[in-house]
Amino acid sequence: MDPTTIVRLAEIIVPICAILALLYALYLSRVVMRAPEGNETMIRISGSIRKGANAFLRRQYKGVALFFIAMFAVLLVLSLVGGGDSALLNPYVPFAFITGGFFSGLSGFIGMKIATAANARTAWAANESLNKGLRIAFSAGAVMGFVVVGLGLFDLSIWYLLLKYVFMTGLSGDAQIHAISSAMLTFGMGASSMALFARVGGGIFTKAADVGADLVGKVEAGIPEDDPRNPAVIADNVGDNVGDVAGMGADLYESYVGSVVATMALAVAAGFGFQGAIVPMLMAGIGMVSSIIGTFFIKSGEQASQKVLLAALRKGTYIAAGLIAVLAYPIIHFALATTENGVTVYHDGAYFAVLSGLLAGVLIGFFTEYFTSDTYKPTQKLAGTTATGPATTIIGGIALGMRSTAIPVIIVGVSVIASYLASGGSFAIEGGQLVGFNQGLYGIGISAVGMLATLGITLATDAYGPVADNAGGIAEMSGLGEHVRERTDALDSLGNTTAATGKGFAIGSAALTALALIASYTDEITNLVEKTKSTFQFNLSITNPAVLVGLFIGGMLPFVFAAMTMEAVGRAAQKIVVEVRRQFKEIKGLLKGEPGVEADYATCVDICTRSAQREMIAPALMAIIAPIAVGLLLGPNGVVGLLAGALVTGFVLAIMMANSGGAWDNAKKYIEGGALGGKGSEAHKAAVVGDTVGDPFKDTSGPSINILIKLLSMVSIVFGGLVLAAHLI
Amino acid sequence: MDPTTIVRLAEIIVPICAILALLYALYLSRVVMRAPEGNETMIRISGSIRKGANAFLRRQYKGVALFFIAMFAVLLVLSLVGGGDSALLNPYVPFAFITGGFFSGLSGFIGMKIATAANARTAWAANESLNKGLRIAFSAGAVMGFVVVGLGLFDLSIWYLLLKYVFMTGLSGDAQIHAISSAMLTFGMGASSMALFARVGGGIFTKAADVGADLVGKVEAGIPEDDPRNPAVIADNVGDNVGDVAGMGADLYESYVGSVVATMALAVAAGFGFQGAIVPMLMAGIGMVSSIIGTFFIKSGEQASQKVLLAALRKGTYIAAGLIAVLAYPIIHFALATTENGVTVYHDGAYFAVLSGLLAGVLIGFFTEYFTSDTYKPTQKLAGTTATGPATTIIGGIALGMRSTAIPVIIVGVSVIASYLASGGSFAIEGGQLVGFNQGLYGIGISAVGMLATLGITLATDAYGPVADNAGGIAEMSGLGEHVRERTDALDSLGNTTAATGKGFAIGSAALTALALIASYTDEITNLVEKTKSTFQFNLSITNPAVLVGLFIGGMLPFVFAAMTMEAVGRAAQKIVVEVRRQFKEIKGLLKGEPGVEADYATCVDICTRSAQREMIAPALMAIIAPIAVGLLLGPNGVVGLLAGALVTGFVLAIMMANSGGAWDNAKKYIEGGALGGKGSEAHKAAVVGDTVGDPFKDTSGPSINILIKLLSMVSIVFGGLVLAAHLI
Repeated sequence: MDPTTIVRLAEIIVPICAILALLYALYLSRVVMRAPEGNETMIRISGSIRKGANAFLRRQYKGVALFFIAMFAVLLVLSLVGGGDSALLNPYVPFAFITGGFFSGLSGFIGMKIATAANARTAWAANESLNKGLRIAFSAGAVMGFVVVGLGLFDLSIWYLLLKYVFMTGLSGDAQIHAISSAMLTFGMGASSMALFARVGGGIFTKAADVGADLVGKVEAGIPEDDPRNPAVIADNVGDNVGDVAGMGADLYESYVGSVVATMALAVAAGFGFQGAIVPMLMAGIGMVSSIIGTFFIKSGEQASQKVLLAALRKGTYIAAGLIAVLAYPIIHFALATTENGVTVYHDGAYFAVLSGLLAGVLIGFFTEYFTSDTYKPTQKLAGTTATGPATTIIGGIALGMRSTAIPVIIVGVSVIASYLASGGSFAIEGGQLVGFNQGLYGIGISAVGMLATLGITLATDAYGPVADNAGGIAEMSGLGEHVRERTDALDSLGNTTAATGKGFAIGSAALTALALIASYTDEITNLVEKTKSTFQFNLSITNPAVLVGLFIGGMLPFVFAAMTMEAVGRAAQKIVVEVRRQFKEIKGLLKGEPGVEADYATCVDICTRSAQREMIAPALMAIIAPIAVGLLLGPNGVVGLLAGALVTGFVLAIMMANSGGAWDNAKKYIEGGALGGKGSEAHKAAVVGDTVGDPFKDTSGPSINILIKLLSMVSIVFGGLVLAAHLI
Repeated sequence: MDPTTIVRLAEIIVPICAILALLYALYLSRVVMRAPEGNETMIRISGSIRKGANAFLRRQYKGVALFFIAMFAVLLVLSLVGGGDSALLNPYVPFAFITGGFFSGLSGFIGMKIATAANARTAWAANESLNKGLRIAFSAGAVMGFVVVGLGLFDLSIWYLLLKYVFMTGLSGDAQIHAISSAMLTFGMGASSMALFARVGGGIFTKAADVGADLVGKVEAGIPEDDPRNPAVIADNVGDNVGDVAGMGADLYESYVGSVVATMALAVAAGFGFQGAIVPMLMAGIGMVSSIIGTFFIKSGEQASQKVLLAALRKGTYIAAGLIAVLAYPIIHFALATTENGVTVYHDGAYFAVLSGLLAGVLIGFFTEYFTSDTYKPTQKLAGTTATGPATTIIGGIALGMRSTAIPVIIVGVSVIASYLASGGSFAIEGGQLVGFNQGLYGIGISAVGMLATLGITLATDAYGPVADNAGGIAEMSGLGEHVRERTDALDSLGNTTAATGKGFAIGSAALTALALIASYTDEITNLVEKTKSTFQFNLSITNPAVLVGLFIGGMLPFVFAAMTMEAVGRAAQKIVVEVRRQFKEIKGLLKGEPGVEADYATCVDICTRSAQREMIAPALMAIIAPIAVGLLLGPNGVVGLLAGALVTGFVLAIMMANSGGAWDNAKKYIEGGALGGKGSEAHKAAVVGDTVGDPFKDTSGPSINILIKLLSMVSIVFGGLVLAAHLI
């Protein structure tokens, strides 16, 4: 087949895969919705959670809409300045930005809808059997997973087709691909912006409610977790949905889309033209089909132990990964084959890049689990440090997180070098440039796509956790009996393990994607220099003071960002503490649990909503202003330094925070399981302190950093024209 | 005057300044030793502390000697391989390495000698008046300060003169300077290695003893701090001397020497020849004289308040800084003037580099104080977080530390750009290179030298803290009465403030010096490439995968290093806890304080010594092996990435850890001063947890990271020949 035919064929296959995933999600959501929602109390509680979550999202989307409108205006102005071909942006960019944000938000919204519908249903099903509970929760997770990947790929392919065949028919060849990819990068920027708001806002909401509820409820008043007397209990459950579901959905939509568009943008420089642009989408497409097939293997007998359930989940993921490993070969072999002087040249090396990405993802997932699961030494040792009180617990957990950064860094490092070399990159230098540099970079991008190809199923195993968590809360509040709580706890704990793996994927792919985005940035600027006949020259040497200072500033951003988000959680939690104390004092009979007396749940939900809303503004603005300001002061060289600095410290810090937080959480659970004196012991109290510190680490700051590093790159790319036109040095 | 005369003159002035400083230190040590040591109990306690400190240092030096012998052998082999001119190292390198280590250790040793002699004397003097106490403690601190700078400059100038006029007379011009500076960089590497051992070993000792003593004594047994019944109390006091005095002495000796040799190594490339090599030493020399003059202004009336005392200390420092600002001008103007085509060209711009360094140091010091002193908002707010328990205290402290990184990063960034531009660097690009790049880099080096020029006096105000701390312990143990303890506490608390400033200097100068060292590395490799006719080419672009992977690995190292040192403190403290518990149980009457019953102090000292000894090996080895391993795998490009990565995350992490730790410490003191319920309240308990977590942050891991980032660079330079000859890609 000639290349054009292959591209045409792929352009048809990709949207079909996407629609398949969406249909599958629709089918699964029917499965969930057909299940009974339980008794009246459960329906009422679930309704309150749903109402709270909706209220939060409605308010969040309103606030975010203002931001999107403002950015749209800015982008519109930039696309008009200069006019026509010499404008700083192409005219589709503002619209791409808006749609990226819209669909990222939509992914989170649908995920939350199904999660809040599935929570009571899971509890009710768990009343019958553990397995029925798992089925409902996992189906809900899978809806989310396939909505994210399905919508992501569908949006990408529609934009691509529209740009190629409707809007940009005036251009052709490389110029057309360039124009398409820069619009699509802006689509990615929209998705990243939305994801940042969703992750930061949702993360602040969920942890403020969680910490606030625990500090007064568990610690001061001595009532159990999820007790209906606690006024923050509904807010806590709402938080699981808006943070761990809607936030995560928007986040992974962004990761997925980001890895594809970043690789696409490298296609021209690598000499692959439209073939290079369609291959990442095609990879995503077959990943989607493989993921769907993988879910059919997730089955188990009616009375399976937790270990068996975990093995079942893993089996599905590994089958999907295996399928991708097999199917990727023909794709790379045929779709990436180019014709040079009449001879067909195959670029099979890129296949190894896919494999290295897949393998790196699996390995990072495994080591994340190793460092954070209480079935392994590190977390058990951490549990041991609780014997000498909270101080040693904290030191131990921070040290664990810091130490755990070594292996993922080495895995990503090996994967980068391997993908680069396998795809035609070399370290030989000719004329000051690395030989095969652009092909090698394209390979790095492809490895990120490979890592995220299994996202449909990994996200399914990840997103079911919060559903199970909520189900447990509902079981507790509606007094369903101890056996139901035990089952939902088992599901929840299983979810913790799979969530760790999911986080590993998100962090690893963020690093590779950010790398590809940095390359896209230099590519974009080089293009702009040609187009605008600018005299700017890159000097990206690390010893260039502009690059170095950029590195420093970039390296500091994740720290400051983490500080801002942690402090936001602290402030919001403080407000919840005050409110819960007030209700315990003012609502007579509440603490005693007198019949007919009910806490004012809505006020707590409202406080969290307003806090999250206000607190998410500053960190998001920093992510957008910093690269523009550094660009205007230090020029594009400084921006590349900033991006690399943020990538390096962001990657390391995100792993550290995620793993410290995960290990503290599981060390507490390990003790609650009976070790070291069990619940109520001094060791347990110390472990609770560790867990509370870990909450914003692993659920607010850590995961937001992944988005931050990509958003910084995308902002830099979109504002590249402005920076190039007006930089100081 | 012609350049040669100026260089000759400077070569005489520099050692004279150094000798002056040493004589002044000798005079001050006489002042200290003339003071009475107090009553019999005090003499006995002081003797025990001295004995313990000596025992630790003796054992440490023995262990370190083995390392130095091994490294000497390795370097000797490298200097013989190839033979003669084509050897991988010049023949003086192994000897330079040994002497660097020796003198760094000696600085720490002398500092510790005077500190352990001054502790009881300070307590006894404080019995008479606050001011007399201050005088003794400050004099001891000044002995340490001037020994460090005096020895540092003396050693540098002797090596320089020997190399230039005795050993390397066969070479001339630039080749000679190159050979000299590469030997002197190895001198720096010796000093850094020693400093790392001293900081890490001392840091582990002091914090293990401190945390161990507190956990059992204060928390479990409920006896006050520094109570003689506590078996770890002597170890705790020994720790102040071996960690905060000997460790800090070796550390700052290394910083001082490092900034000078790094700048010297840049002189040739900048086109300044011997003038450029001597100017950093000359700057250090006038800094020394200015510092001596500054100390004469530290006076105050007999009944001064703490505020007045602090103002007096500050006055001395500011006068020294002012003098340097004035004297630096003629030095730069005359000593750096070159003759081109018969016309004298002045390079006065470098003067602004000196000023920017001085100013950056002062500003970083100020902001460190702002974030960590309880007279400002951040620490007061942190104290407020203790109201909701230890978890919020920890989150608050970590967030404070992270947020506090922004300002120093920006200050260093501005200083780098300003020094670069002022000294002739430009961002214009010709032939792919930055115009005036090497002059600009030399300017960055000069700004580091400028920042450290006041070291004599800043170190004096810094090193007196531990002396006052020890004096307080001795006053407590020998029952000197409440008023003495109050006075020593006042001195100690003043010391905390000045120590914060000192840490700011150390971190800021480490960043600038490490920068200069990275430049020296590329310079060294470029030279080696010419010499060995290697085909290697630099491609330091951040987008080069080798550089990027190096960046990642480098960025991870400070995290892993911090984890290793924190865990070491935890393990060692655990052993002390076990031992103290054992003594309380087995030594009858000890806890009740029966007369004649004494704790077995020596065993605790011994446990700390052995732990520190064993635990310092792994982190030190990592610092030496990592750059060589990365070099062999990824080549010199990867090494530069590694150095830059470690510099960026190391700088940010070191600031964060120092400031979080300092703020927790002072938040606790703030509460002990009566705020938020005062001593014994729940808030105070939470603050103690924060302080305990902060101990290894600020006194073990944080300060060691400064040394780590420089040692990595020096190791890379020394092993550059090996890496160049045998790298994989």
